[in-house]
Amino acid sequence: MKRNAFYAQSGGVTSVINATAASLILTAKKYPKHIGKVYAGKNGIIGALREELIDTSKESMTSIKNLMEIPGGAFGSCRYKLKKFEDDPKEYERLIEVFQAHDIGYFFYNGGNDSADTAYKISKLGAKLGYAIKCIAIPKTVDNDLALTDCCPGFGSVAKYIATSTQEASLDLKSMSESSTKVFILEVMGRHAGWIAAAGGLARNSTTNSPHIILFPEIKFNQKEFLLKVKKAVSKDGYCVVVASEGIKNTKGKFLTESNTTDSFGHAQLGGVAPYLSSLVTKNLKYKTHWAVPDYLQRSARHLSSKTDLMQAQAVGAKAVEYAVKGMNSVMPIIVRNKTKKYSWKIEPAPLSKIANVEKKLPRSYITKDGYGITKKAIEYLQPLIKGEAKISFKEGIPKVETLKLIEVNKKLRSWI
Amino acid sequence: MKRNAFYAQSGGVTSVINATAASLILTAKKYPKHIGKVYAGKNGIIGALREELIDTSKESMTSIKNLMEIPGGAFGSCRYKLKKFEDDPKEYERLIEVFQAHDIGYFFYNGGNDSADTAYKISKLGAKLGYAIKCIAIPKTVDNDLALTDCCPGFGSVAKYIATSTQEASLDLKSMSESSTKVFILEVMGRHAGWIAAAGGLARNSTTNSPHIILFPEIKFNQKEFLLKVKKAVSKDGYCVVVASEGIKNTKGKFLTESNTTDSFGHAQLGGVAPYLSSLVTKNLKYKTHWAVPDYLQRSARHLSSKTDLMQAQAVGAKAVEYAVKGMNSVMPIIVRNKTKKYSWKIEPAPLSKIANVEKKLPRSYITKDGYGITKKAIEYLQPLIKGEAKISFKEGIPKVETLKLIEVNKKLRSWI
Repeated sequence: MKRNAFYAQSGGVTSVINATAASLILTAKKYPKHIGKVYAGKNGIIGALREELIDTSKESMTSIKNLMEIPGGAFGSCRYKLKKFEDDPKEYERLIEVFQAHDIGYFFYNGGNDSADTAYKISKLGAKLGYAIKCIAIPKTVDNDLALTDCCPGFGSVAKYIATSTQEASLDLKSMSESSTKVFILEVMGRHAGWIAAAGGLARNSTTNSPHIILFPEIKFNQKEFLLKVKKAVSKDGYCVVVASEGIKNTKGKFLTESNTTDSFGHAQLGGVAPYLSSLVTKNLKYKTHWAVPDYLQRSARHLSSKTDLMQAQAVGAKAVEYAVKGMNSVMPIIVRNKTKKYSWKIEPAPLSKIANVEKKLPRSYITKDGYGITKKAIEYLQPLIKGEAKISFKEGIPKVETLKLIEVNKKLRSWI
Repeated sequence: MKRNAFYAQSGGVTSVINATAASLILTAKKYPKHIGKVYAGKNGIIGALREELIDTSKESMTSIKNLMEIPGGAFGSCRYKLKKFEDDPKEYERLIEVFQAHDIGYFFYNGGNDSADTAYKISKLGAKLGYAIKCIAIPKTVDNDLALTDCCPGFGSVAKYIATSTQEASLDLKSMSESSTKVFILEVMGRHAGWIAAAGGLARNSTTNSPHIILFPEIKFNQKEFLLKVKKAVSKDGYCVVVASEGIKNTKGKFLTESNTTDSFGHAQLGGVAPYLSSLVTKNLKYKTHWAVPDYLQRSARHLSSKTDLMQAQAVGAKAVEYAVKGMNSVMPIIVRNKTKKYSWKIEPAPLSKIANVEKKLPRSYITKDGYGITKKAIEYLQPLIKGEAKISFKEGIPKVETLKLIEVNKKLRSWI
């Protein structure tokens, strides 16, 4: 029986989430007996609640294929966590109502932990209400903190960006250090997990010997020890490169610089660790410092995406469709690393119940004993994920961007407040 | 008569300054009757004062060619301004002494305004002392603020980086804006000149309509007007992208956030405008914001260099040698834009006396009437400079870096304090 599909992007976007979307839409076309139209939620799940469904069949094949080269979330994403079902089932009921109105039999939710949880709950509610729907969560997060999957689409590209930027900036700093800046601090994303910070360690080479220090959220920040490390590096190499996770915490377990605002998931909004560390160094060691906070730049840098990451982002989009038409429910296509000597991978289904709301931190064995670097084990894990360049087209010197039509289907229901 | 050459890198480095160096070294090899060895100053002019001269003839041809793909200053740069000759001629006399000891007949100084001034003074001193030396200053600065030359090597690549990053981050912001971040602020370099900020304007496309606001150092910052503009953009598009120069000043002519430290040229060290503006917006308009400060990343991003910029960086290095062997003195090879419809350029010599210590700001005609955007004239000027991609080799997922031997010649003089 042919039914429509609903696809939504959720949470912070990545440079390859649109590649997942494009791959899903193109794969769905291969199953015309199972899947009718693919509707994309305008601004993620909010689009479903508001019955704002973008009809992807109105876009040309070329436009859909071009999406593979465009960062951000082409249909809009959102930071919106549904209320607990027990506290307020209204939102879930509304979703089922909208799905029913548009004959949606497949729910694809492209996001992180929270999204896996939402997809899981909807699959349970569908079963309870007797509404047939296949719920597939598709992995996406630069934080790389999803359980079960070997890595998360989006992460490899940020890792490549941070490793490259650390290397490039280290070469710059080295040139300047004799008479000017001695310390450079790069603040990276990753929240509670040090995966992105660890990727900075891949920049290490004999020319710059950088980064000298990596600050992980998994290791409590010790100011005295940190300053001593900086001093040692400057004495030895003449300069010091620090990669600092936005999520580092002090010995009391508090974020170094909490900006006092929280997002709609209740997470604290971070940022500002680099200027904070910079002033610490200047004040205590009198070194001239420079600091950088790439923020969105790191996760939207499609011009420097990892080819491995791009291929995995495409693969999870395609597999999600295949699983759904096979009748699987409440699963996520995860990336499994094969036990081969040369890196290779495959996609396999994993149950959402084991993924929802679980956060995978950087293992202690990936961090050096002293807590400021990465181990061989970490390098072996990380290096394959940043390999290969995922070329894009340029126009007038900048990446080419094409605009989608984003045509919404007619509403059938009352409006949602 | 065959004499040696001295080459030094000065001031903040760029992603293509090594391409100038490589091109100069390779071109010098074409004139074996005029030029013996090319010595590079270890850490710029400091290397000449200390008699730390790197013998570039000890490097393999492959290593020199590889330099074309490596950001930063391979021989070390410095922020060191010679004292005024009138106040203290000792440094100039020492330079002549070192040059004499190593039979240096050619002085190539690769930098900005200050370096042009130094080269100019040394040429005058050489003439005064009867020491034959050809002094050529070679343009280099991401700030694009040198007089006479149409543009400065290093600028086109930063411009490409900032235009690309603005576009990529705008696509990210657009995806998130419905339920989360509404304002994104990107702080860019450029000191007193708004050239780099203007380059952000090249990101503009119909998909994101960004950047909505550019803050130039040439236009006094008006807080009330700025906040109104932000509010308007959010009302219209749902989000607002701001590109802010690090050098913007308030109505009293003070930098918005002066970090109270100065470099050795006496310039104030800037940085922190983006977090400052971000808190202004949050406090006054209650929008969620994100901000980025790419700092060194923008000027060392060789992976995203402009091909036009790379070619010009190579050309000025080659022409510097040609001018010197032709017997020219106290000149700079500058980039001249031909009056053709399609962009084309050539290199011509210009007198240092007209370049030294002059700062070229962004013309008012390049800024829109309201002071927050760029005009068609600016786009026509900027766009050709960011065109073309200057590909690099990758190894294990990050740009390939090879280490130079950096062998110094034996010292002949007493040490310099």
